[in-house]
Amino acid sequence: MIFSLFSNMAARHECLSVGLLLIFSGVLSFPVGQDTKQSATCGYESCHATKPNMLNVHLVPHTHDDVGWLKTVDQYYYGDRNDIQHAGVQYILDSVVDQLLKNPDRRFIYVETAFFYRWWKQQSSGMQQTVKQLVNEGRLEFVNGGWCMSDEATTHYSAVIDQMTMGLRFLNETFGPCGRPRVAWHIDPFGHAREHASMFAQMGYDGLFFGRLDYQDRDRRMKDKEQELLWRASDTLTPPMADLFTGILPNGYNPPEGFCWDQSCSDPPIRDDPDLEDYNVDDVVKRFLAIASSQAKVYKTNHIIMTMGSDFQYENANLWYKNLDKLIHYVNAQQTNGSRVNVLYSTPSCYLQELHRANLSWALKTDDFFPYADNAHHFWTGYFTSRPALKRYERISNSNLQACNQLEVLGGPGSRRGLFGEGDSQTMKKAMAVAQHHDAVSGTEKQHVANDYARKLANGWQRCQVLVSNSLAALTGVSAERIYCDNLNISVCPLTESSKKFSVNVYNPLARPVTWPVSLPVNGSAYTVSDAQGKSVDCQVVPVSQATQNVRRSQGFAINELVFQVQAPPLGYTTYSVSLRQDGPPPAATHHRTPTVIQNKFLKVTFDPDTNLLSSLSNLETKQTIKLAQNFYWYNASDGNNVDSKQPSGAYIFRPNSSTPFIISRTAKTETVQTSVMQEVRQWFAPWVSQVVRLYTDSRDLELEWTVGPLPIDDNLGKEVITRLDTSIKTSEMFYTDSNGREVLQRKKDFRPTWHLKQSEPIAGNYYPINSRAFIKDDEDQLTVVTDRSQGGGSIQNGSLEIMLHRRLLYDDVRGVAEPLNETSSIFPDGLVVRGRLLLSLDRPSTAADTHRPLAEQVVLQPLLTFTDGGLNPNTQLEFSGLQAALPPAVHLLTLTQWDKDSVLLRLEHQFQSWESKLNSQPVTINLQKLFSTLDVLGVSELNLSANQWKDEMTRFDWTPQTDQKPLLKMVREPSVWEVTLRPMEIRTFLLRVSLK
Amino acid sequence: MIFSLFSNMAARHECLSVGLLLIFSGVLSFPVGQDTKQSATCGYESCHATKPNMLNVHLVPHTHDDVGWLKTVDQYYYGDRNDIQHAGVQYILDSVVDQLLKNPDRRFIYVETAFFYRWWKQQSSGMQQTVKQLVNEGRLEFVNGGWCMSDEATTHYSAVIDQMTMGLRFLNETFGPCGRPRVAWHIDPFGHAREHASMFAQMGYDGLFFGRLDYQDRDRRMKDKEQELLWRASDTLTPPMADLFTGILPNGYNPPEGFCWDQSCSDPPIRDDPDLEDYNVDDVVKRFLAIASSQAKVYKTNHIIMTMGSDFQYENANLWYKNLDKLIHYVNAQQTNGSRVNVLYSTPSCYLQELHRANLSWALKTDDFFPYADNAHHFWTGYFTSRPALKRYERISNSNLQACNQLEVLGGPGSRRGLFGEGDSQTMKKAMAVAQHHDAVSGTEKQHVANDYARKLANGWQRCQVLVSNSLAALTGVSAERIYCDNLNISVCPLTESSKKFSVNVYNPLARPVTWPVSLPVNGSAYTVSDAQGKSVDCQVVPVSQATQNVRRSQGFAINELVFQVQAPPLGYTTYSVSLRQDGPPPAATHHRTPTVIQNKFLKVTFDPDTNLLSSLSNLETKQTIKLAQNFYWYNASDGNNVDSKQPSGAYIFRPNSSTPFIISRTAKTETVQTSVMQEVRQWFAPWVSQVVRLYTDSRDLELEWTVGPLPIDDNLGKEVITRLDTSIKTSEMFYTDSNGREVLQRKKDFRPTWHLKQSEPIAGNYYPINSRAFIKDDEDQLTVVTDRSQGGGSIQNGSLEIMLHRRLLYDDVRGVAEPLNETSSIFPDGLVVRGRLLLSLDRPSTAADTHRPLAEQVVLQPLLTFTDGGLNPNTQLEFSGLQAALPPAVHLLTLTQWDKDSVLLRLEHQFQSWESKLNSQPVTINLQKLFSTLDVLGVSELNLSANQWKDEMTRFDWTPQTDQKPLLKMVREPSVWEVTLRPMEIRTFLLRVSLK
Repeated sequence: MIFSLFSNMAARHECLSVGLLLIFSGVLSFPVGQDTKQSATCGYESCHATKPNMLNVHLVPHTHDDVGWLKTVDQYYYGDRNDIQHAGVQYILDSVVDQLLKNPDRRFIYVETAFFYRWWKQQSSGMQQTVKQLVNEGRLEFVNGGWCMSDEATTHYSAVIDQMTMGLRFLNETFGPCGRPRVAWHIDPFGHAREHASMFAQMGYDGLFFGRLDYQDRDRRMKDKEQELLWRASDTLTPPMADLFTGILPNGYNPPEGFCWDQSCSDPPIRDDPDLEDYNVDDVVKRFLAIASSQAKVYKTNHIIMTMGSDFQYENANLWYKNLDKLIHYVNAQQTNGSRVNVLYSTPSCYLQELHRANLSWALKTDDFFPYADNAHHFWTGYFTSRPALKRYERISNSNLQACNQLEVLGGPGSRRGLFGEGDSQTMKKAMAVAQHHDAVSGTEKQHVANDYARKLANGWQRCQVLVSNSLAALTGVSAERIYCDNLNISVCPLTESSKKFSVNVYNPLARPVTWPVSLPVNGSAYTVSDAQGKSVDCQVVPVSQATQNVRRSQGFAINELVFQVQAPPLGYTTYSVSLRQDGPPPAATHHRTPTVIQNKFLKVTFDPDTNLLSSLSNLETKQTIKLAQNFYWYNASDGNNVDSKQPSGAYIFRPNSSTPFIISRTAKTETVQTSVMQEVRQWFAPWVSQVVRLYTDSRDLELEWTVGPLPIDDNLGKEVITRLDTSIKTSEMFYTDSNGREVLQRKKDFRPTWHLKQSEPIAGNYYPINSRAFIKDDEDQLTVVTDRSQGGGSIQNGSLEIMLHRRLLYDDVRGVAEPLNETSSIFPDGLVVRGRLLLSLDRPSTAADTHRPLAEQVVLQPLLTFTDGGLNPNTQLEFSGLQAALPPAVHLLTLTQWDKDSVLLRLEHQFQSWESKLNSQPVTINLQKLFSTLDVLGVSELNLSANQWKDEMTRFDWTPQTDQKPLLKMVREPSVWEVTLRPMEIRTFLLRVSLK
Repeated sequence: MIFSLFSNMAARHECLSVGLLLIFSGVLSFPVGQDTKQSATCGYESCHATKPNMLNVHLVPHTHDDVGWLKTVDQYYYGDRNDIQHAGVQYILDSVVDQLLKNPDRRFIYVETAFFYRWWKQQSSGMQQTVKQLVNEGRLEFVNGGWCMSDEATTHYSAVIDQMTMGLRFLNETFGPCGRPRVAWHIDPFGHAREHASMFAQMGYDGLFFGRLDYQDRDRRMKDKEQELLWRASDTLTPPMADLFTGILPNGYNPPEGFCWDQSCSDPPIRDDPDLEDYNVDDVVKRFLAIASSQAKVYKTNHIIMTMGSDFQYENANLWYKNLDKLIHYVNAQQTNGSRVNVLYSTPSCYLQELHRANLSWALKTDDFFPYADNAHHFWTGYFTSRPALKRYERISNSNLQACNQLEVLGGPGSRRGLFGEGDSQTMKKAMAVAQHHDAVSGTEKQHVANDYARKLANGWQRCQVLVSNSLAALTGVSAERIYCDNLNISVCPLTESSKKFSVNVYNPLARPVTWPVSLPVNGSAYTVSDAQGKSVDCQVVPVSQATQNVRRSQGFAINELVFQVQAPPLGYTTYSVSLRQDGPPPAATHHRTPTVIQNKFLKVTFDPDTNLLSSLSNLETKQTIKLAQNFYWYNASDGNNVDSKQPSGAYIFRPNSSTPFIISRTAKTETVQTSVMQEVRQWFAPWVSQVVRLYTDSRDLELEWTVGPLPIDDNLGKEVITRLDTSIKTSEMFYTDSNGREVLQRKKDFRPTWHLKQSEPIAGNYYPINSRAFIKDDEDQLTVVTDRSQGGGSIQNGSLEIMLHRRLLYDDVRGVAEPLNETSSIFPDGLVVRGRLLLSLDRPSTAADTHRPLAEQVVLQPLLTFTDGGLNPNTQLEFSGLQAALPPAVHLLTLTQWDKDSVLLRLEHQFQSWESKLNSQPVTINLQKLFSTLDVLGVSELNLSANQWKDEMTRFDWTPQTDQKPLLKMVREPSVWEVTLRPMEIRTFLLRVSLK
């Protein structure tokens, strides 16, 4: 499953290596094949001429091909299950290519490389040459070009960069520079993240177009002609590094009313045969001119764009093009009668070029486009939480994939083909890439499609497991079979449940050492655990909680958990040996009395003796304390039976029936376990809500492990379960959420920075996506909650932060999915049970990031545990680090993955915003040659963020904001090619030529 | 609107005229264009090779494009109103041509020339060349090839021959011999007429395929492997003149279940990428082989056919062909594993060729395929009567068109472009041609489509009126404006209603003189009528009946009708002058007493004095009398709410709720008018049923002019109104109906000649189409009813004949039309009123045809009346005949129409069956040179019936019937090329080179 294109890249590197310079140069690749010399007039050069004194209407034929939604991605590709939705992408591409060949004026854009790649593989070389010609002439243009069009609210930047890189790499290696998209095209996602805009800017896009924004925002922007604007997408990166020209499309991404000529539409075709009864050319021209004129009134220039296409359209492109040809002909023919409207086939980049040539200044925007409402009671804030299990599975899959990628590099070529067979990371990369789609991790797909995404991730992980086993065999020097336990969160692992002697390999994908609590299901009552040095490690056996026994159903039979802390080296592993003791002490006892206090050397947690709920949290180092009450509630989901609006809560939409949530229980029943490794208070609120408040001995954060489900629906009420933290912090109606796991944005209740909000949904209208963390703060205290997946949340009351954990709904929300979000499975026929963790840290605001940045990093890239049964082979290399030294705290090793035979892709990231930390918000310099312990770095060249362009060749349109000076990014000359400096929030992408030492 | 192709044909004739021979020879035409020299391997030569030792599965990609049904023909062509039904024929042809070019193995058949012609006109010459190449290589093959696929139950043979001729002529002139269809393809019509098979045989088709037949018939034929058979379609024509090989398709005309890959289907595509999840090649191959094997069991040879297409399919042909390519590849790949199945792209003619090569003998069939039932309670016998007004309008339009055609010839070139502007017959020919479609005159289209057919006929007639006016101006020598009165049947004609002096031109399209009663709406009470010789004609003024006043609503205001008999010469006209008399007698009185008897010198009619109903009919010449009671009844249409079946009566289906019809009134109120011209008894049964029993003084038939409607539905009961004639004739459960207006077939109650019928619908299952006549008889008496349109009827009781006149239904019958047959209009918002005539003749069986053949001929081609206001110009030529002499009674002049500048198409028909008449069932010889009075016949060549092949070049496959000797048609050498002999039921078609004398 390795791209055949790898070899192409490798060839170029070989060639470069004969020179003396260690830096790569030149374009990244040429298209494969013999016709690479054919004249290429693509991109901006291939645009049709426009008429300066007329209104130019840019018609953009396009299709929007969801990488899974109502059907699976495979079903969409082949056109299977057309009974669910008529859609077959193979036919779309067949048809569009045919039709482009019929008239050189025609244009088409294609977006989703997941589909295009699949189609390309099946074409004859003749057809491939034909398509290359179309691309080289700008008649077929790729826009966006990632593997999919990612969701913006629930994705993590790491996975988004990966999926964009994969798609753009394929285009680059197949088509060369003419295949490089100039424009980002996020026409469908349900709200827009600032971090996405920042990434697009760093990927070299000249502009972004999208279709969905808040209806009030749109109204204001139409009035002020601000539907085209300059988005400054980072508060830290020096402009224009994260500046992105952004255009809001006039009709979402649909054609204007009455002008849809797809097979899926019923608008009247142009009937221009005067012999037939219904000749309608005059009517069509008149309607079109009226629409063009009214659209021109709300945009700034004498150019307007019309998206001529929609979901899965152009399966029979002839219908569209035949009528568009006629439309252009007949509308332009009116110019001889004095019409000042000029219609042309165009693309988003051609349109963008005209906007750029207009040389105007544009409104500057610095916030984001969340939440998205398309009407007063239609807030698309439910999907921030929809399908919480899938959202977590996607996140852990990313962690596993990064480990897999790294081990592919560190383990050498034997990783892919080794003792345990053929493994690869590509299957999982693709599975993760499709999972980023805006109806995948977003949770807005049909149930069978959600199952398919999960299955794809599981298949990918299977392939990665072989690779990881091979790699670890190479690195450890022994070939013992490696067991993977993916269900440790519910205390299921057949090996540890039954084995008397086994070892645990703990691989740490972070570039610094980690300490990590491990809890293994066991049936013995006492074990010895020793580390790689043979030193015994403090471990405890505690009984499996009732909640866990409930949730695992019949999947496991462990009665105890073996708990200990592991420590693993940077980008490497260590090994722990575990043996059953016949003579050990009994498991730790559980008590039904709730302690007033649990504490370690960093934190103190108190409980209200009347309710058994949390009552306060103290940081013992900073000597700060806040009142902290926490409980679980549910909103009654609107069933649509409402005087204000018929909108029910659904997969997309959050709409509580009342702004006051129901409390699940005022008090918790509890059980307490206190050991030398950790202390935990197990709280029980209802048969479907429980929680463990857990404090590890060496931890600076308090873990709240929640278990929610099956949500009861026998009362016929849809439920949206939240946990709410009510504190003494004086928040002044503000709270903070991250954007795609990176920069943090301030949120204010009932407020939007760029327009006067008329709030119509007091809860749903104040919800924002939380990807990795949210916090509330005042001058003294900052309570940060790090999440293990994307969730929705808000701060409705002062001092309060609520996070939505799980949703179970009885009605579809009429956005197309046509299913209520009511998750069940064979194991959970009565409704899905979901378990997760919130990690709380209390700090002074000025230093809080020093805690939550590394903490979130550890949750995102968590250690990978693998198990070996029996005693250790004495020849085993028990410990390994791929790095010469841990990286500084500010630097995150974002990407390390094999690029081709001799090259690896490396991304280093400064993970602090400029204002976050005195200590860490500083530039850091890393020497790339001194980075790896087992790899010699022979060459290096810097790339743009998406690795499809050499950094020094990345030139973008410059745009003038209305409100401040045009910024200039100062190029800093770095001391050597090996020493790279990262300033706050920078991500730098390198292609390294390496050899194993 | 004249075909541009005329000129092409003309050119060839010019060329031929330089020779000495007066007979045309050679192929009819070559395709236009420069590539006519390209090698043509079409027809049977272009078929793919098959494998003799395997089961060969012929896959036939096809589309079935209704020439109007749920949408109008124009809407279907353009793909307009896709909200009603997704269908756009322009795109089908675009797409199929594209896809045929992609793989030379692919095949496609096209059927409906009405659509193909329209598409062809819009193509570039490059595309036209491409299509010619495809046709010349047999990759695109035309089958059937008429303007439409005609209905078989409700069409008249005259119009069917015309529409076939028009379509086949276009194909011939465009593509030459490669464009000539070898196979008739009537896959959709709802039952099959023997006369259609006879016509197809005479048109040179090698075989016929269809999809629909009675379910019991199919079961029997499957069991006996008689789904392929030899149809002997005439009891009179010498075999094999009307023998037609007939194949019944295996799945109607659809693909086998699970193998529909059109965009309109949802069957799984072939997913042959092993990287995707749902690889299904093995499953598809297995399912296909199972279907092929089970299909082979019910056919005779090692060849089977599968129709891969359906209604309006192939709009995106790529979906079909991509999957068919794969199917063929993967199924045939199994041959290396021992599979004995060979799949190939094929066409009906290639399949037929293999059946012919099998050299077997085939079951012989001599009856027809009516009525059609697809289930025990689903008899498709309602459409025999559905939309009676449209059915009549189509029939009268045919009469008008034939007159128009003749006058185009007789009037010379000035007919098309003359005093009254540009006229043409082409518009009406096309309108009539589309009206023959099996959802047009059948009455099974949506209301708006029925309106469109009527509008097209009206438009065509407008164009013809100009032509007729020009022609009559040329023939009469004067240019007075000519007024057309199309509503004389309801006594509406603005000219005659108001004028004090006017003349009537009576054009007779028959080849013998006619006597015809004329009734003109007037407001005066006495008129003088004189004939062309200035002789006064007996005329009478009678008051307009109340029934007529009701039915015409506010369209006219005549209080009287002026009634007289006209006599017109063969193929010519005469002129009557009408003047208001100031001093005349009052109008004839009406009496409310019903006479016991009305009679003339031929007939005597008695009435029952208690009921005022008919009681007997006597032929005074033959001295025979029968009891004859006649009344009106209605069947209560099933609403589908029935234990046996949920099938309601609808546009297609007739299903009475009970076998006993409701009587409308046991007695009639009457009014009588008796004059020297005619006697009439006006019977009133209900506000919605009335009748005039009318006997003209010179007439051998009794006219029953019925007026039915608006059918009341305020009782929520659908109604199907019949009239029933109950006689003393001993019918022995038999009655007789014509087939498409020609040969008569015997029908027997609850009986089918070729299988043991299990009757499940005692009324609907005994209904048959009546196109022009039905009769009942015993040894002594034959009562023949000549109808003025197609109707359904049956003989349920001995001695009884019932005819359905009108239907108004409240439920759709679930055959796709999705409307109840509930006709209203702006003039009749309360429901359509329909008026029509039944003509009764009583004769001895041995001579009955001598009466009903000419009588029916007069109803089909009735005199065309045109009016001129004011006095006659003294220079007017008042009388004209285009013939030197009337033709003998046995010979019908079926067609006389301009073919190109110097040629006319002539069809002469022997209109008697061999057994019908001692007098007339004899060969007749006609001398073509002595035929016309004003045309010199310079050359003659005989053609096949459809005029697309020289008769002497028409060779057809010979087939061996199982049950008798293979017949041999003896060629009779005729005395000269000018003298042509017509044997019973023969139609002979000639192209005559003519010049005006």
